[in-house]
Amino acid sequence: MKQQSNTGIAVIGCGTVGGAVCEILLRDRKLLEAKTGSRLHLKYIVDRVFTAAQNLQLDDTLFETSLDRALEDDEVTVFVELVGGITTAREITEQALRAGKHVVTANKALLAHHGAELLAVARQNGVCLAFEAAVGGGIPVLRALYDGLAANSIDAIYGIVNGTCNYILTEMIDKEESYEEALWAAQSKGLAETDPTLDVSGADSAHKVAIMGAMAFGIQVDFDQIPVEGIDSLQREDVMYADTLGYVVKLLAIATRVGEGISLRVRPVFISRDHALAWVSGPFNAVSIYGHTTGHTMYYGRGAGGTPTASAVVSDILAVASGTYQVFFDRFAFWPDRNPPTELVPVAETYSRFYIRTMVDDTPGALASIASILGTHGISIASILQDELPENNGAEEQPHFVPVVITVHPAREANVLSAIAEIDDLDATGEKSSVISIVDDHPEGVF
Amino acid sequence: MKQQSNTGIAVIGCGTVGGAVCEILLRDRKLLEAKTGSRLHLKYIVDRVFTAAQNLQLDDTLFETSLDRALEDDEVTVFVELVGGITTAREITEQALRAGKHVVTANKALLAHHGAELLAVARQNGVCLAFEAAVGGGIPVLRALYDGLAANSIDAIYGIVNGTCNYILTEMIDKEESYEEALWAAQSKGLAETDPTLDVSGADSAHKVAIMGAMAFGIQVDFDQIPVEGIDSLQREDVMYADTLGYVVKLLAIATRVGEGISLRVRPVFISRDHALAWVSGPFNAVSIYGHTTGHTMYYGRGAGGTPTASAVVSDILAVASGTYQVFFDRFAFWPDRNPPTELVPVAETYSRFYIRTMVDDTPGALASIASILGTHGISIASILQDELPENNGAEEQPHFVPVVITVHPAREANVLSAIAEIDDLDATGEKSSVISIVDDHPEGVF
Repeated sequence: MKQQSNTGIAVIGCGTVGGAVCEILLRDRKLLEAKTGSRLHLKYIVDRVFTAAQNLQLDDTLFETSLDRALEDDEVTVFVELVGGITTAREITEQALRAGKHVVTANKALLAHHGAELLAVARQNGVCLAFEAAVGGGIPVLRALYDGLAANSIDAIYGIVNGTCNYILTEMIDKEESYEEALWAAQSKGLAETDPTLDVSGADSAHKVAIMGAMAFGIQVDFDQIPVEGIDSLQREDVMYADTLGYVVKLLAIATRVGEGISLRVRPVFISRDHALAWVSGPFNAVSIYGHTTGHTMYYGRGAGGTPTASAVVSDILAVASGTYQVFFDRFAFWPDRNPPTELVPVAETYSRFYIRTMVDDTPGALASIASILGTHGISIASILQDELPENNGAEEQPHFVPVVITVHPAREANVLSAIAEIDDLDATGEKSSVISIVDDHPEGVF
Repeated sequence: MKQQSNTGIAVIGCGTVGGAVCEILLRDRKLLEAKTGSRLHLKYIVDRVFTAAQNLQLDDTLFETSLDRALEDDEVTVFVELVGGITTAREITEQALRAGKHVVTANKALLAHHGAELLAVARQNGVCLAFEAAVGGGIPVLRALYDGLAANSIDAIYGIVNGTCNYILTEMIDKEESYEEALWAAQSKGLAETDPTLDVSGADSAHKVAIMGAMAFGIQVDFDQIPVEGIDSLQREDVMYADTLGYVVKLLAIATRVGEGISLRVRPVFISRDHALAWVSGPFNAVSIYGHTTGHTMYYGRGAGGTPTASAVVSDILAVASGTYQVFFDRFAFWPDRNPPTELVPVAETYSRFYIRTMVDDTPGALASIASILGTHGISIASILQDELPENNGAEEQPHFVPVVITVHPAREANVLSAIAEIDDLDATGEKSSVISIVDDHPEGVF
């Protein structure tokens, strides 16, 4: 077996993931070297505080509070950026790339906002930037896009890529809890941050779909063009009606071709209980990728956490150490810095089935008005569910609103939203209607 | 982007998979070249008959009935072996490797029986042998083992890797059909061969677990040591009791560490309805891989069929054309030709829970005898299910056997089999008992 010279490594940021990476590089060094023929030498652990590092009893002679020694050390060829956030991480990444170091990162926000620019800096300096850990934690999903499915033109991606949201939704479904109750449960188990905004707003999932979409379709994505809806405004009633109708609610990161264009979006959707993503519960992640020759493939595993994410980081270190990653980086056309900025197709132009819950006053003709508005917008009703009315206890002058649940056949989203605005303006309807798209199984090619 | 010289390709065997590979290489050539920076030139399609090739309207100037021109053509660097079977495929593969051609194959039987030897021939001739398509069709599962999960020591693999068996089992479960009825349904849909032995006997799954096990654990597997049980002796009653008890029956290919050793096995098992593999239905495949840092990951997709399998074949061609595969082939230690033959742990030494269905004559003490025999063998009963007895219609002298369904706590398989032999010898028991192991979720490390 051919063995190459040592790959010197500096890990920048030694928190949960960084600590796990250092632990693997130190504890499992012999195992990894024997298995892969790469020689790995962790030389520096750079951070401001070393609480996590000390808890893991990592070798404290490696601790550095400044990047300088690592940057100047010619034996260090790989920087592992795990500080998180955007500003500092961007500075560190640029500095390392310009110093001729390869960079491995798990930083999805950084990649989603500045991926194309950083890839270009890497290329100018003859090094590369690897980021398997940025999507799906320990699941090798980016490798599927650039290697395992290389023979495919990718048709679509549907991913559950945020474990916090998936845990909260699973709680809401299984325990019939409100969003607030389920969030609290997730926080008490350490599965949601004290400020959970990045997760529950859908932003984190949007970072990941930006990265996957760019690589799957060979486009440069302007992150701000991605329409993002989180789970934080989801109502318990809608989660329960989903169940009644045979669906589950999942926060999906979606990337599809729409005509000649591409649509990326993040939103809570209804999927059938028989859908491949429906059973993915709790903190797990799963990504469905549809290729024009493979059809449907799916990748499942732990999307976060120290050691699963570290697994992806170390696999990138090994790929850079062995030189395989450089080949993909040099030859493949789909890297965002090699493609001009792409105008995404607005989500309003996409088609799907929809679930609509409208609060209707029990007056004759209300349902007729709704049906008529939908018809005017070219929307065809698939099913209507209206529970029995409660007894009228004599308060004859008070309007009493009851939920009417409608599902419609595939329709253009813009038409649905216009129709709902008109419906919500009717005197006979109450609070704002809920509108949630229903995601069906993506069609596969014929085999 | 760096582009390398043309990779000349010869496809040997132009049936379902070969035809799809040729179609992709011809039809999608520009797409693949633009995407991957590799230049691919299909020069020869070698077969005895060209029915499939003609149906696909492939360029008939490429047709050859002999290997000679392809072997002699220096521009051809990759042979794609898709003739199937063992004898001829082995000759072709050896001939190509000795002529200094890389070989890409989908042939699991060939790999399972002669993998180590062929890998060694490849290495002696400075070329490599790639076989992603041999396991899981279009699912890039071997890449997960050698690349995506490279940072892991693999703990276990559980795979549904035969679509025919999975389709038959799904039919038996969903439609309460017998094995024979479900097989017939699969055959009428073209999902089972006229002679289905290779699939239903478990042999095909065993080929795949031999390949995965070798690469996951870095061992050389003697195929004949793998205990294989198929679905062909599965009884409808047991499939239905599985449902009653909250399980589904799946044919699993299993590779686990047992103490310091490795166990590989193929058998129908009970898995909980909540298990990640339980929902995998019809012709789909899925492989769960447990790594010491990632925990549980799973890979799902179409495990057979022309274009999904061709996707894996073409991804290997691209990996060889770009040179990434050679790096893994040269440097990694887990290739079977680099490891001495490994003695597998006999399945009798493994532990699991078990389902037992015994036909018991309604005599006092029968159940007590069974419980006592199990106890003597150190086996602890978890649950007993005995349906109400049918009315005795006066035929007092006739013994009437009723099923007693027992599940037991984890026990050594050898002990369970000895106990069952004793139980089946009792006067109070009827036909041979069914014994099926219950596979629980594999434990993950702590994250």
